[in-house]
Formats: sequence, C-alpha cells, structure tokens
Amino acid sequence: MMDTAAPYEFDADTAVRPVGPNLYMGHITPRWNIGPVPNGGYVMAVGMAALRAALPQPDPVTVTAHYLRPSVPGPVRIHVDTIKVGRRYATGVGQLHQNGKETVRLLATYGDLGRSVGPTHVAGAPPPLPPPETLAPLPVHSGLEFGHRFEMRTTALGFEPGRATGPAEVSGWVRFADRRHPDVHTLGLIADAFPPAAFQVLAPGWVPTIELTVHVRAHPASEWLRCVFRTRFIFGGLLEEDGEIWDEGGTLVALSRQLAAAPR
Amino acid sequence: MMDTAAPYEFDADTAVRPVGPNLYMGHITPRWNIGPVPNGGYVMAVGMAALRAALPQPDPVTVTAHYLRPSVPGPVRIHVDTIKVGRRYATGVGQLHQNGKETVRLLATYGDLGRSVGPTHVAGAPPPLPPPETLAPLPVHSGLEFGHRFEMRTTALGFEPGRATGPAEVSGWVRFADRRHPDVHTLGLIADAFPPAAFQVLAPGWVPTIELTVHVRAHPASEWLRCVFRTRFIFGGLLEEDGEIWDEGGTLVALSRQLAAAPR
Repeated sequence: MMDTAAPYEFDADTAVRPVGPNLYMGHITPRWNIGPVPNGGYVMAVGMAALRAALPQPDPVTVTAHYLRPSVPGPVRIHVDTIKVGRRYATGVGQLHQNGKETVRLLATYGDLGRSVGPTHVAGAPPPLPPPETLAPLPVHSGLEFGHRFEMRTTALGFEPGRATGPAEVSGWVRFADRRHPDVHTLGLIADAFPPAAFQVLAPGWVPTIELTVHVRAHPASEWLRCVFRTRFIFGGLLEEDGEIWDEGGTLVALSRQLAAAPR
Repeated sequence: MMDTAAPYEFDADTAVRPVGPNLYMGHITPRWNIGPVPNGGYVMAVGMAALRAALPQPDPVTVTAHYLRPSVPGPVRIHVDTIKVGRRYATGVGQLHQNGKETVRLLATYGDLGRSVGPTHVAGAPPPLPPPETLAPLPVHSGLEFGHRFEMRTTALGFEPGRATGPAEVSGWVRFADRRHPDVHTLGLIADAFPPAAFQVLAPGWVPTIELTVHVRAHPASEWLRCVFRTRFIFGGLLEEDGEIWDEGGTLVALSRQLAAAPR
C-alpha cells in the first residue's frame, strides 16, 4: 500500500507517487483480483491516478485503455506523456509497465465538468430497479477478492446460456464496501465491476478486455450508483459491452463501452 | 494526391508513403472538407493507412482518435509506434502532425477478423429502411465538399430543434460516390460521415469531435451500407453519438461512439 494514511481502499490501492520526470510508481494489489488477475477497471484507475496528477484539468471526460498483457499484483511504473494542454481540455497518454513490459496503454482527455455549459436533451433513463435496500446483496464467489470491495444489489441474474433473443443485460446498484463516495476517478473501475452481461447468454468463461473506453459525463452525487450493462453483438470471437452509470438522483454520470474476446 | 494511379478517391486521398523509420507522409486533401475543416473520420482514415502499413495484423478491430487541433488541407506527417505484437492482436499508436503540431493521436488494436471464432448471439437488427433505390439522395449543401464523396439515401431528416423527447437519430444508406467497395479501412470514415444526429433536436452548429472510437466487427460484403446514429445525452456541453454500420446482407460491420462538444 502506497499511503497507509489513505482511509479508503480505492484511494490506498490506486495511489501513485512521482519518481521522476513524467514517471510515477503505483502498486497493483491483489485485493481487486478476479481469480489470479487484477480487474481491468482497477488497473485503469491506477493509471488514471497518474494522469490525474500530471494533467492540469480535473475530470477524465474520455479515457481509453488498451490491455496489452495481463497485469499482476505488484509494483507498476507509469509513464505519463502530456500531449496537449488547451484552454478547455488536456490530453495525455499513460503507459503502465510491470516487470519491464508494457501492460496497459491509456489515452485520455481531461476537462472540467463543472465549467461546461450548453443545451440539454436527455433521451434515456436509469435502469428500472427497486431501491437498493429492498434487494439482496449479490453473493461473492469464494476466491473473488474483487467482490469484497463492493456491495452490489441486483435483481435476479439468471444465467441462460443459449438464450435465443434479446440483449444480454445486467443491471444493479453498486457502492464501495467501505462506503467511499464515488467520484469521477472511480468510474472506470465501476464500468468494469459487474459480472459480464454476456454471461446471461453464454456459459461463463474468460472474457479478456481488449479495449475499454469510459466517458465521464457528470460528478456522481450519491453513494449508490445504478448501472446497466448490455451486450448485443457476440460473434466472430468478439463482443462489446455497453454500460450506463447513473447516480441515485437520476443523473447519467458515465457511459462505457468495451471490446472483449468472447469465451471460446 | 500521393498516388495518381489509385483509382478511387478514398485510396488516393488516404495514401501514405514511408519516409523513415516509423514515419509516413500523407496528404490531407480538401475534398473531404466540412466547410473549411477536413472531416474527422477522413483524417482518422489517413492515420489508419499508416497503422495498416506498420502493423502485422490486417483488420482494425478497435481504433480510438483524440482530436487535439483542427486538421488543415496539406501534408501530414504520421509517426507510428508499434507497442505490442501478440499472436492474435497488434497494438499501435499513430501521431499525426501538421505544421509542426500534433493534430490527432490514434490508439488502435488490429487483428484478423477472418480468423476469429466463437459463439454467436446477435440481439440487434439493421435500422429499418426501404431499399436505397426507393429513397431520394440526400442533397449536398453548397460548399460541402465532403458531401460529393458519397451517395446517401435517407428517410426524412426533419430538424426539430427543441424536440422534447426521444433520442436524436439519423439513419440511412451510404455508398462511395465513385462506387468504391467499402472495406474495414473505410469504416472510421463512414462512422463520421452522416450529419450529426444531434441536429435532429438542436439548431445546427459546430460539433467538434473530442474522441471517436470505432470497433470493426466484420468485413462489409456490399457496396451500400446502412447506418444509424443516435445521441441520447446532450448536457454539460457534451454529447455522445453512437453509430451502427451494417452491410446490405444484415451483418453488423462496425460500432462507433464519439464524444463531441455540444453547440453552444
């Protein structure tokens, strides 16, 4: 743990420290593992901590991660290259290295969501879910360290491998187990936190993320977030998963999309 | 024009030539201008030509572009950095420079769509459109050079600024005016070719793309492509546009999403 004073797991486990020009060190902890592998959204959040430290704008408006190799628990070296600082946006690259090899490449544009103005047209609504207090917590599978970092409340997640029609969809409430308030920096992690929607129609298997893009659209204003993830197109060995993250007040706080390899 | 022997406009206007280690030169022509500015999808396609030349895999499975500065007609220098070559995927970065400044940063993973296998679950359908022959061509506004590069057939595109509900949506058929067969390398351009869906609910204005990501999912097997673009969330000065590109046979060939600044 980089900072033993950090009160919340997310902050402790994504902390980075500057060690040279454009260079940061972090530590990938096994607490966010899915089996033996650190969750991709968590690794993105560690890289975002370095981008956040390096870029002059406060909010990650769009972040793309390409996953080159599996991450492993242990030290991570993050090189940040600020490629453009404009009046409204700043764009940077993050390169995560472990054991001498690049594991993740990030490309991100930061801005200031609090300063933005413009017309409003919202044609979407949060996923219909009963209040979180009325739903049973999602059980955590043994060995799924990642599951202990969150409290998730979902309606029935019925696995129906081979179901013929309709999008594969997972929706539910999520908050940090230690009640950390979600901010813009946590939304890349949240976007990769639910069980893959594809497991609603395929037998569960290994679904490695190739690329994950998160658009942060607003500051979350509640502890609970309600999320929906949908996969519509599974073919040719690939699938996409589209996510919406809303706060309890009904504000869309992030959109996500990932491209992943389908289980064989 | 880089290659006067190239028979099609797309190929002539996206041609690049190697000029050094990891370095290519291309030429942004004004033929793909929207007013004075080259279309962002076209500029992405020029950058993709360099990635295609440098990477050992044939198909762009996911390409992200961050638009740092407006491009201008004229020479473009493209530096390509191959950051990972694996068994199934190769990932690279493209940096486009004009007049000494970086204009666009690309991050892309290429693969081989022909080699992919896996389960199939498709929960989506092409936009409902009459056959292209039965629709009137979309008129090209004077001065819109870009419009002359395509033939577009759409149902009514009624501008309804201030419409209260529903997604802003544009759908239609598109093919190259010179009948070039669309391949995987053209789909980033196609993803940015239609009038912004947001113009269905907002007064038209300047909608600069901040980031565009395209997932190519299959090889297009027809000259006409049918597309739908939807914008659901316009607020805080930002909007997303989600696109689907299908071929005439009903195969989804690409998904796209862009983050853009909303007109003020």
